[in-house]
Amino acid sequence: MLPTKENRERPRLAEGGQRRVIIEGASPEVDGGRYPAKRIVGDTVRAAVDLISDGHDALAGRVLFRHVGAEEWRSASLAPLGNDRWAASFVVDRLGVWELTFEAWIDAFNTWRSGTRKKEKAGQDIAVELLVGAALLEDAARRVKGAEAAVAALLEDAARKARDATRPNVDRLLAATGELVVRAMDGAPDLARSTRYDRVLRLTVDPELARFSAWYELFPRSCGEAGQHGTFADVEKRLPYVAAMGFDILYVPPIHPIGKSFRKGPNNTLTAGREDVGSPWAIGAASGGHKAVHEQLGTLADFDRLVATAKGLDLAIALDIAFQVSPDHPYVKEHPDWFVQRPDGTIQYAENPPKKYQDVYPFDFECEDWQGLWLELYDVFAFWIEHGVRVFRVDNPHTKALRFWEWCIGELKARHPDVLFLAEAFTRPKLMYALAKGGFSQSYTYFTWRSTKAELETYLREITAAPVNEFYRPSFWPNTPDILPEHLQHGGPPMFLLRLALAATLSSNYGMYGPAFELMEHVPRPGSEEYLDNEKFQLRTWNLDDPRSLRDVITLVNRARRANPALQQTERITFHATDNDALLAYSKATDDHGNVVLVVANLDPAHAHGGWIDLDLAELGIRPGESFQVHDLFADARLLWSGARNYVSLDPKVFPVSLFVVRRKVRSEHDFEYFL
Amino acid sequence: MLPTKENRERPRLAEGGQRRVIIEGASPEVDGGRYPAKRIVGDTVRAAVDLISDGHDALAGRVLFRHVGAEEWRSASLAPLGNDRWAASFVVDRLGVWELTFEAWIDAFNTWRSGTRKKEKAGQDIAVELLVGAALLEDAARRVKGAEAAVAALLEDAARKARDATRPNVDRLLAATGELVVRAMDGAPDLARSTRYDRVLRLTVDPELARFSAWYELFPRSCGEAGQHGTFADVEKRLPYVAAMGFDILYVPPIHPIGKSFRKGPNNTLTAGREDVGSPWAIGAASGGHKAVHEQLGTLADFDRLVATAKGLDLAIALDIAFQVSPDHPYVKEHPDWFVQRPDGTIQYAENPPKKYQDVYPFDFECEDWQGLWLELYDVFAFWIEHGVRVFRVDNPHTKALRFWEWCIGELKARHPDVLFLAEAFTRPKLMYALAKGGFSQSYTYFTWRSTKAELETYLREITAAPVNEFYRPSFWPNTPDILPEHLQHGGPPMFLLRLALAATLSSNYGMYGPAFELMEHVPRPGSEEYLDNEKFQLRTWNLDDPRSLRDVITLVNRARRANPALQQTERITFHATDNDALLAYSKATDDHGNVVLVVANLDPAHAHGGWIDLDLAELGIRPGESFQVHDLFADARLLWSGARNYVSLDPKVFPVSLFVVRRKVRSEHDFEYFL
Repeated sequence: MLPTKENRERPRLAEGGQRRVIIEGASPEVDGGRYPAKRIVGDTVRAAVDLISDGHDALAGRVLFRHVGAEEWRSASLAPLGNDRWAASFVVDRLGVWELTFEAWIDAFNTWRSGTRKKEKAGQDIAVELLVGAALLEDAARRVKGAEAAVAALLEDAARKARDATRPNVDRLLAATGELVVRAMDGAPDLARSTRYDRVLRLTVDPELARFSAWYELFPRSCGEAGQHGTFADVEKRLPYVAAMGFDILYVPPIHPIGKSFRKGPNNTLTAGREDVGSPWAIGAASGGHKAVHEQLGTLADFDRLVATAKGLDLAIALDIAFQVSPDHPYVKEHPDWFVQRPDGTIQYAENPPKKYQDVYPFDFECEDWQGLWLELYDVFAFWIEHGVRVFRVDNPHTKALRFWEWCIGELKARHPDVLFLAEAFTRPKLMYALAKGGFSQSYTYFTWRSTKAELETYLREITAAPVNEFYRPSFWPNTPDILPEHLQHGGPPMFLLRLALAATLSSNYGMYGPAFELMEHVPRPGSEEYLDNEKFQLRTWNLDDPRSLRDVITLVNRARRANPALQQTERITFHATDNDALLAYSKATDDHGNVVLVVANLDPAHAHGGWIDLDLAELGIRPGESFQVHDLFADARLLWSGARNYVSLDPKVFPVSLFVVRRKVRSEHDFEYFL
Repeated sequence: MLPTKENRERPRLAEGGQRRVIIEGASPEVDGGRYPAKRIVGDTVRAAVDLISDGHDALAGRVLFRHVGAEEWRSASLAPLGNDRWAASFVVDRLGVWELTFEAWIDAFNTWRSGTRKKEKAGQDIAVELLVGAALLEDAARRVKGAEAAVAALLEDAARKARDATRPNVDRLLAATGELVVRAMDGAPDLARSTRYDRVLRLTVDPELARFSAWYELFPRSCGEAGQHGTFADVEKRLPYVAAMGFDILYVPPIHPIGKSFRKGPNNTLTAGREDVGSPWAIGAASGGHKAVHEQLGTLADFDRLVATAKGLDLAIALDIAFQVSPDHPYVKEHPDWFVQRPDGTIQYAENPPKKYQDVYPFDFECEDWQGLWLELYDVFAFWIEHGVRVFRVDNPHTKALRFWEWCIGELKARHPDVLFLAEAFTRPKLMYALAKGGFSQSYTYFTWRSTKAELETYLREITAAPVNEFYRPSFWPNTPDILPEHLQHGGPPMFLLRLALAATLSSNYGMYGPAFELMEHVPRPGSEEYLDNEKFQLRTWNLDDPRSLRDVITLVNRARRANPALQQTERITFHATDNDALLAYSKATDDHGNVVLVVANLDPAHAHGGWIDLDLAELGIRPGESFQVHDLFADARLLWSGARNYVSLDPKVFPVSLFVVRRKVRSEHDFEYFL
């Protein structure tokens, strides 16, 4: 006897079995939706997804999106790209967090329409098909009836004609599949069996400055007259100098009271003299901590005025937030539980055994009162935001808990979506990426140590490829107060020009530590990558009017960046082959190729180099065989090129880099040819 | 006046802020854990993950795993691979679904141990550090006290010695960091602030046959004597022939009653004569449907005996399950609601407009009674499993709902984890992958249409790379009853030998449709990729004793596959460069290089070709400069090679493929050199 279903155990049935479409491979998506992708306000977001279903039925779908503050989802229809991939675009027109997800379904009407057309063309009888189509039209009419009476009437009319057996079948089919009817049907899908993507993805939408910014770092205390301790007022006087060079952000090391205990002397020596000013990163003294200003710089009111004046010059003041304290910081007495306590009753200072940093206490992010600590650190940012600061550079974020940053930056940006955070982390790559995923708007990079053609190409490919480009916005720095890289020590002026041009054109976000950079300061503490007589530990006097200053070149570079939208983004970059490893060639273009820039750099500061470049013309928006103009913005020279293979020669003693704008020949109405 | 925290809104605090480790990038993981990865019972699973934490503290972690039926998690410690990647291995020693996840934490003891050692080496006073370490030891002792008294005692003793100020510090440190103490501390981690991976990943653990199998397909009805309709008894007689060739699975087209309505005639003609046997895929007649057997084949008891006899020969009988019905199937009367009803009261037959397949009704997987339909289809599998079938080939699974397969296969394998499913889907790549993710144990591929070196290399790279290799087990078929590819029509015997050798050595799962294959049947219906006089629509008589039969070569190939474990897996394959595009060279190796096979194939059936092969010696387990033997199992010839570059010449008239076993020279105890 056959077993019957009755004597077999029945399995449970899955929910939603009628939802035939599977949605996979969504983009932009970071770590399965765990973290938001990053965009700029005004961006057109391209959302893509795989829609997979059994059989050959027509599919349809849409991306659903909304600002996190909105109740209702908006939507855009997905269009097929081939190979089961679909995409749609929408504009993020508001700062803050956006949400997106996807929905897809079997499109019964278009499945019916294409099948019935084929049958009609093949001369088959479609009388029954027309009744099937009429029923689909009537169903749709019922769905929209309440909301869109006119559309319902249109569909009902089409259904009536499809059912009208007195008319020829071909007319009935035409009536049921007219352009307006199809559009109305597309707008009235049956979602009863639609599939919703199982995750809601997020986007962080930032101000444009997050993607395109030029940073200039200086030490306020070195801005004084003739060796005097500089003040906020002195920095105010320096603003026109910085603004004239074309920078967007002026960033200053910590401005808080500096501790006296274990204060460091010049060149990081362990004992400070009475006059020594100490390190601004040894934060906190009897006069206050992270919400106070160092008295030698002035008052909080002076700082407020500096921020306001800078704003008038389109300069943002960026503060350096370093979450660590000197032994003299008020927190040490008020909240000793926020630090690691040693069995002998002392507080654990910073160390990297066997090195000791007795002037600095790190916070214990795991302490019992971690919630009190986190709220206080949040409050530090909130305090300075209230004082008009919108940009923060965070010192060593990689030595503070990752979950703290995700929480803190998330909460701050929920209230102030225009605020930006730059992560100063030179550490392991995955940790740098984790900080970016956790919310940092921009990130330091390894650019400072990438100098050969292979190193630069490999590194740029890594950070501009998906998924990294979705969450990591690189900022390229040729120098910092912490790093005078070896090539700047020995490469002479050509190396300064080269690193400036590379930083400013490889990455849309870049910065420099000045005036050390423009004055080509290059003497290290022997055997190190650190500056001699570093401003971190002493005042410096800089002669801004030194005739060798690079300020004019910097001005030119920043002007070129502002004039060429292709340079205002980092991820769309193409490297072109050269037959000389000293020559690096890359181009950037806007999406529509309306602006195209080609950079050729001689990486050898000591010798002139020439070589052939094999251009990827398609990436330049040039047709094969078309002649085009390349206009070197540095030399202000114009060349007429034709074809993919062109020769370039660069003498570093003249200038090590050509920054070409690529212009296509166009013909005017009056038949006059010119380069666009 | 400074704003205070009190007059600012306080944000909410995240949960688990003290859990400092982030866990990312887990492997094996398919679509963020949505689908299981596939493994074979006895496999060593290598689980890997990124552990990322702030700062420089030592980390530790473990993979947690269990059979889905077990309550308790087992665990294996993660070891660092560098660049923040960690891995651990465990063996899946039982069929069915396994679960795995990860846990990681800051390792306070090892952080303390390495820091304190460095301080001690640098001559610093470590008296306070010793007290810190003692406290860590005491904490751990408290954690294990109940369960492991001896370990607790060991740790307490170490703590006592660490605290003993009468002893030299160096001795105290040694006592606190002895090997046994370190091991005990590793085994007693403080998990209070550990991070758990936020997903539980799954593995489907199958019998070995899922990874390594040779399939032979035949039509039972053609197994009869002298043009008589074959029976299960005839197939039983054919079993030794199939088993002797070294096949593991004998698979037969549907064995159910065949419909009479719209029955197809020979060569797919629309009208069948009285004697025409029809297509086995037009399933169902008055005598029964998917749970009945076609009366001309015999009885269910005959089938049971066939399964049993096959089992005795180590052959599994695979049934072809085709979820569609002829108009005569009992379902049509009993459950007309399982099909699409047309407005004229008829049932929608299969079609691909304008083509009509009136002999077949597809199921409507979205019908109102979808639950009833799904349960019944589940029951079809359950019925045949009760009759001893453990392997199913599913016909056109890509025209049935994906969620149905995921549910149905999942439920079946939950009860019968040894059952395997082969997806016969030649469709869009993402749909084929979706079926594999949804549970199919093996999948048809595009191998049948990949014939040039570039095509084969590209395709193999695609399907053996992550993540595809985690869920998709390819099965390579040189021919099927549906496909006589063009190269077999025109390539002559060398092409049959080539495609056999490629299928059987590129993929550990392969199959053929016989006796058409071994008898080199190659005449198509004109202008098509279909066999002329196809067995799908008529009986055929095959002369198995034809002297040109490839049965001996097939036997040799299957013997080589069984003798060489390197051929029993697909994903570990390396292509080697050749300077002649007619020559394809690839190797496979076991993990330990204990067995290494090198295949060189001449893809041109018409001409002899020679060329240099640049071997990747490391992939062969050969040291540079080492000489090694290659033993061609087809020609039974042995060559001594040395170095990476070797010349191979293959004449397709002799044999188009060399299947080399690569043997290293070893020296015996008695100083006698031989090849292993």
